[in-house]
Amino acid sequence: MINRQVVLAAHPQGVPVADDFRLVTAPVPSAGPGQMVVRNLYLSLEAAIRSWLDGTANYFEPIALGGAIRGPSIARVETSQLLGFEPGDLVFGLHHWEDYSLSDGNTVLLKKLTPNPALPLSWYAGALGGSGQTAYVGLHRIGGIKPGETVLVSAAAGATGSMACQIAALEGCRVVGIVGADDKAEVVLKELGAHAVVNYRKEPDLAAALARTCPEGVNVYFDNVGGATLDAALMTMAQGGRIVGCGMISDYNNAATPTPLYNLWQVVERQLKMQGFLLYSYLDDLPAASAALESWLLSGKLKAMENITQGLPGAGAAYSAMMAGTTQGKNLVAVGEG
Amino acid sequence: MINRQVVLAAHPQGVPVADDFRLVTAPVPSAGPGQMVVRNLYLSLEAAIRSWLDGTANYFEPIALGGAIRGPSIARVETSQLLGFEPGDLVFGLHHWEDYSLSDGNTVLLKKLTPNPALPLSWYAGALGGSGQTAYVGLHRIGGIKPGETVLVSAAAGATGSMACQIAALEGCRVVGIVGADDKAEVVLKELGAHAVVNYRKEPDLAAALARTCPEGVNVYFDNVGGATLDAALMTMAQGGRIVGCGMISDYNNAATPTPLYNLWQVVERQLKMQGFLLYSYLDDLPAASAALESWLLSGKLKAMENITQGLPGAGAAYSAMMAGTTQGKNLVAVGEG
Repeated sequence: MINRQVVLAAHPQGVPVADDFRLVTAPVPSAGPGQMVVRNLYLSLEAAIRSWLDGTANYFEPIALGGAIRGPSIARVETSQLLGFEPGDLVFGLHHWEDYSLSDGNTVLLKKLTPNPALPLSWYAGALGGSGQTAYVGLHRIGGIKPGETVLVSAAAGATGSMACQIAALEGCRVVGIVGADDKAEVVLKELGAHAVVNYRKEPDLAAALARTCPEGVNVYFDNVGGATLDAALMTMAQGGRIVGCGMISDYNNAATPTPLYNLWQVVERQLKMQGFLLYSYLDDLPAASAALESWLLSGKLKAMENITQGLPGAGAAYSAMMAGTTQGKNLVAVGEG
Repeated sequence: MINRQVVLAAHPQGVPVADDFRLVTAPVPSAGPGQMVVRNLYLSLEAAIRSWLDGTANYFEPIALGGAIRGPSIARVETSQLLGFEPGDLVFGLHHWEDYSLSDGNTVLLKKLTPNPALPLSWYAGALGGSGQTAYVGLHRIGGIKPGETVLVSAAAGATGSMACQIAALEGCRVVGIVGADDKAEVVLKELGAHAVVNYRKEPDLAAALARTCPEGVNVYFDNVGGATLDAALMTMAQGGRIVGCGMISDYNNAATPTPLYNLWQVVERQLKMQGFLLYSYLDDLPAASAALESWLLSGKLKAMENITQGLPGAGAAYSAMMAGTTQGKNLVAVGEG
């Protein structure tokens, strides 16, 4: 039995490319006391991983050249010497891009999954996982959305954005999406319940385009990207508007040279609240979020948009495509056997 | 009887200079039905006036060349055909820089003052007016200060900053002030209860200086200036920190070319809340704020820092000095007779 691993071949320059990653084989780990070995089923591709690829310290250790890529996954317990976890259990945790990962009680994000058999397992990494929960908690707890309000969502066809658009629409808001491609614009309008969409690549003056699309101003901006899009949104906020700071992906590929913003004075002028949040600070909100999401998904009111790459060897290219912004919905790698 | 007026002689380029203003004489207005004539006693010099001097539209009409400067003042009613206002009443309202102003029920900020005779009348434009109330409401309602927290205050020797430093210290916070001159640094440390002070003009790396001064991070940043100081503060905030957006004076003199900010991604990374506010949105908080301020002032625990220019002819130069950042405390002009 071998353990295929995707390791870091080179520190990416800007947007990662497939050659920054390499497939190798390693021994299958074995579980000591307090540990378990899990079989990875679905890798959850996330923007946060990008910050671990530069070789500089972060909240987590940087990934060394030749080291396996760290990332969350849905996995099945193979062997366990960890109390409370039995072979066959399904878990979500911060593992590595490999067939088999060693896990213990300190594994970040580690939780047991009790999936609803009527729903695909992969959804527990996206629509029923961090993406859906982040969208739900961000809109409600941080954004305080109310029916009839205008909600602007950037990266609207992305994993979190696609959920935020749909949830805001389900809650009776007028939803405007921002995307960077025509195919995404179509999905946002036709599949995700948005009332209008703006393709920022086609707008020489994004603030003017947003002002046209949101004539009464934006009450809640669900910000997945930061940078120039946030700067334009600041000029379109209604008095007392709320900005939910969920991600600043526009700078993840260039952390050393963040995009300058010029319109922060609008925070005072328009009495805005801008609040960043990370889901793990709102654990008390998760049961209600999960219940609402599952109910909407079961009834078909909410769609889980997924982009699943088949097979571990494609993980690097899949991650490159995601960080280049060419994909839609939640990006996953089905690890598979071959 | 003549009515001396300070009018706009030229649109300021950057920081206003004394020659941008000119003293002229005009007829004393007379009150028609629903109007009153007030005698201005203290002009309240405020940064917001700067935005009316450029000749471009704003929330208010711009001030035309040759037009009297609009600004708040403490005044005494001379003649009144306005219900509820009698000659001799003291008021605070948005008047003009002149001896006598015409006022009516629509005058913004218009309210009757019932000053405590044990306190100087001028304090009702500063420590007991917008400056004190903004500091109190901003720290409590927006910032949610708690004893033991680190509170950073920019423009710490200014009208609002000097109140914010003292109030935060009275509430048991560790207070760090940011100033731009050594004489201000001394006042902030020795008179305003700050535990430490940073002179940003002496710090090539302001973020590093703040990190040294606030080793556990800043819980609440009371921001009077925006710009590069805000950008440095973003790098010093503690997880879950709050930024009270009270003013962005650093750009008032150059509204067309705001300072770029690079560190907004910290809002997500550190889960910050940045909230701008204008006092008129928190009218319900004013009675409690005024009661606390008056009580502290009467007991001597709180000091009202004032910089009073004597005589209307000096108003332009006084405003220029304030906007150049060379003054301390609340800037007022005692209109006087001569």
